[in-house]
Amino acid sequence: MHLNHRALKIVDRLRGDQCGFNISEQIVAEATVLDLGVLAVGGIRAGLELARVCLADLAEVNLLAGDASSLGLPRVQVVTDQPLAACMASQYAGWQIQVGKFFAMGSGPMRAIYGKEKLFDDIGFRESASHAVGVLETSKLPNGDVVHYLSEKLQRPPSQMTLLAAATRSLAGGVQVVARALEMALHKLHELRFDLNQVRSGVGVAPLPPLAADDLTALGRINDSILYGGTVHLVVETDDDALRELGPKVPACASSDFGALFSELFARYQDFYQMDPLLFSPAVVVFSNRRSGRVSEFGRTDLAVLRRSFGM
Amino acid sequence: MHLNHRALKIVDRLRGDQCGFNISEQIVAEATVLDLGVLAVGGIRAGLELARVCLADLAEVNLLAGDASSLGLPRVQVVTDQPLAACMASQYAGWQIQVGKFFAMGSGPMRAIYGKEKLFDDIGFRESASHAVGVLETSKLPNGDVVHYLSEKLQRPPSQMTLLAAATRSLAGGVQVVARALEMALHKLHELRFDLNQVRSGVGVAPLPPLAADDLTALGRINDSILYGGTVHLVVETDDDALRELGPKVPACASSDFGALFSELFARYQDFYQMDPLLFSPAVVVFSNRRSGRVSEFGRTDLAVLRRSFGM
Amino acid sequence: MHLNHRALKIVDRLRGDQCGFNISEQIVAEATVLDLGVLAVGGIRAGLELARVCLADLAEVNLLAGDASSLGLPRVQVVTDQPLAACMASQYAGWQIQVGKFFAMGSGPMRAIYGKEKLFDDIGFRESASHAVGVLETSKLPNGDVVHYLSEKLQRPPSQMTLLAAATRSLAGGVQVVARALEMALHKLHELRFDLNQVRSGVGVAPLPPLAADDLTALGRINDSILYGGTVHLVVETDDDALRELGPKVPACASSDFGALFSELFARYQDFYQMDPLLFSPAVVVFSNRRSGRVSEFGRTDLAVLRRSFGM
Repeated sequence: MHLNHRALKIVDRLRGDQCGFNISEQIVAEATVLDLGVLAVGGIRAGLELARVCLADLAEVNLLAGDASSLGLPRVQVVTDQPLAACMASQYAGWQIQVGKFFAMGSGPMRAIYGKEKLFDDIGFRESASHAVGVLETSKLPNGDVVHYLSEKLQRPPSQMTLLAAATRSLAGGVQVVARALEMALHKLHELRFDLNQVRSGVGVAPLPPLAADDLTALGRINDSILYGGTVHLVVETDDDALRELGPKVPACASSDFGALFSELFARYQDFYQMDPLLFSPAVVVFSNRRSGRVSEFGRTDLAVLRRSFGM
Repeated sequence: MHLNHRALKIVDRLRGDQCGFNISEQIVAEATVLDLGVLAVGGIRAGLELARVCLADLAEVNLLAGDASSLGLPRVQVVTDQPLAACMASQYAGWQIQVGKFFAMGSGPMRAIYGKEKLFDDIGFRESASHAVGVLETSKLPNGDVVHYLSEKLQRPPSQMTLLAAATRSLAGGVQVVARALEMALHKLHELRFDLNQVRSGVGVAPLPPLAADDLTALGRINDSILYGGTVHLVVETDDDALRELGPKVPACASSDFGALFSELFARYQDFYQMDPLLFSPAVVVFSNRRSGRVSEFGRTDLAVLRRSFGM
Repeated sequence: MHLNHRALKIVDRLRGDQCGFNISEQIVAEATVLDLGVLAVGGIRAGLELARVCLADLAEVNLLAGDASSLGLPRVQVVTDQPLAACMASQYAGWQIQVGKFFAMGSGPMRAIYGKEKLFDDIGFRESASHAVGVLETSKLPNGDVVHYLSEKLQRPPSQMTLLAAATRSLAGGVQVVARALEMALHKLHELRFDLNQVRSGVGVAPLPPLAADDLTALGRINDSILYGGTVHLVVETDDDALRELGPKVPACASSDFGALFSELFARYQDFYQMDPLLFSPAVVVFSNRRSGRVSEFGRTDLAVLRRSFGM
């Protein structure tokens, strides 16, 4: 599938128009680092490209106009026919990268080279690529130590690495995270032990939340956007009986924490990893089962929570 | 206009990323056959490209997010400023190809090379291209006999033919057929003897129905999608008086069969060609007459029928 | 930023497919003149490209499906992360070009070469490019006198000039003007002495009005479309207090003329430049302040006025 190679095509587009995208490139310990929203201003268009990099260019990513379901805010849509490769092997932010005081949620196709996350044992989708492309959700640009750390983990020389960095609170960062509605549904299905090979195609849409002044508020708004305003359509090939049982467990409202803001839950548990993992799923998940032709919809949006989260 | 040559650009894009599109290429009796949804899994993105091939790359084809008018289902939008060439000379599935047990609805620019359908006498739009590109809506891949049959009809050697095949029940097949809302409105206008040269531009939108388990159910859902959920905007240059008289006859509700599911009508008449041809038109047709500046809207959607058809 | 150079990329795309876009190219006194909607038929797709030329290819421009907020009419969306350069230095139609009986509203990146409008003193954004690209909203194609006039003003030989012309009443012209919702908001902010450097990104959406039979009616409908149906989202970095005071003055409803059709006001004042300049702004303007994380929405759409303007 050449995930890293595919992502490079988007990287080249970004590098070729740094001025238009408000981004900047630098070489750090021989690795190429693109700043899309740490010190750089970046923007929505840089964010759409960043989401495409995360998805290894296996998805269409677009900004849609808002409607009542998004409180009038623009929406981000992702369409892919390779959900497992695009969302799980590449986009999922499953790699927590801590090097000294540097921290980033790591995503993008470099994860499939590293392949040490448990997820990769389940999905069996690793790759050996000469050039690694990674996305860092971080409030600091990676320094030489970070590059060397990743170079060792990836077993690639820094010169064969491209890292794209954006803070959660940046526009580009916000777009790339809110482009994860579909990925979040797949991850939840995986947690529920649904065989992701039965998911053929997917479409995810979620409102682009208003920018926040700090990363934690930004993270809260983006999660609320997907949990209370996100809708995912999945084309599956499975048993209706299995779906009937599984379905109600999939959307965010399956969690008893549904209705609370991300920021409230974070304050309550003091730790992201103490929060109910079953909460993290889109508000609405629609299954279209090509084996039976049956459609089934689960979950509900909650615009009141969205309004509260966004201060609207 | 070089319809076939234009379509080849999309063909090249598909061939260059078979893995990403879930499609496969094979050579059958020296012709290039792309399987987008017969044995291959294909997907939504392959379907959007397939629709572009049908339209000879003279239209923008996009997947839009759903709204209430589509029961929340994603929608397919087509925009063209060459409605006659794109929809009539190329996209219209006017060529029934029967070779032994093989059957396909044939569409795409190869029809303009063949040019034997009566429609071509009316629109006067044929072309002589060195390479023929055709789309086959079929449940079987074409074999050597089919290739030779088409080669003879098209008077082109098989090596100068590219055939793209997808079943009606496949995702790519469903997308390419539901992308026909605009074409259906034009065809209905043609049946009503409206001069299609007076149509300057068109925009068609229809919900992407949930996949069905078999071709007939799929065909029914797709037709219902356009008949009861499709909306077409036409920029015309004509007389308001003529439009006032013609308008009410254009949308699907002009037929006394309006309100019945395609599958019910098919069961009643036992034959597609016995069904009221005037039923086949989008639910809503809006004319914008540039000669007078007058807008007029005809028809209505019927979401209850859509719900029944889609089992939602 | 190379505004003119960027625009040339779109120009090349248009020139390379004149047949598909229904446009025509001619050489006038050694300058390249593209007719997208004066004598040529043009279309929606040519209009989207024309809008991209106006915006120096620094924005995404798309046709969205209609919804209730657009009376079901398709909508034009613009997304940019370079609002000052794209909308003010390039797209704004600030150059009135009168040569004998020829008149055009001049826009596009050639304005940044000319740089004599007062606006350029404020925004400080001029450029010296070898090739000038300009857009003319005009009911006549430019003749040799117009070319020589512009050549002198731009201090470029005609052979280094590309002019794209479309009438207001043409489809391409209508699309490019209605793509100005965001630009109109920025211009209004500038009138209100808001520092446009504080605007980071913007998204503008407005309904594509039905074609009118003459330029004045067309101009009226397009303005009404933005004034009563347009919505703009702005990502800003500023003080909330300043926004709280400024906000209510920004949308069209801040003017006492709000509620009247453009054509009615034009009849009343007999002159565009006598009309209240504060009226010219989108119906709704939403600010997302990244400094505070606060969202604030001002204004309201008025669909009744839109219906009256469009005769729907």
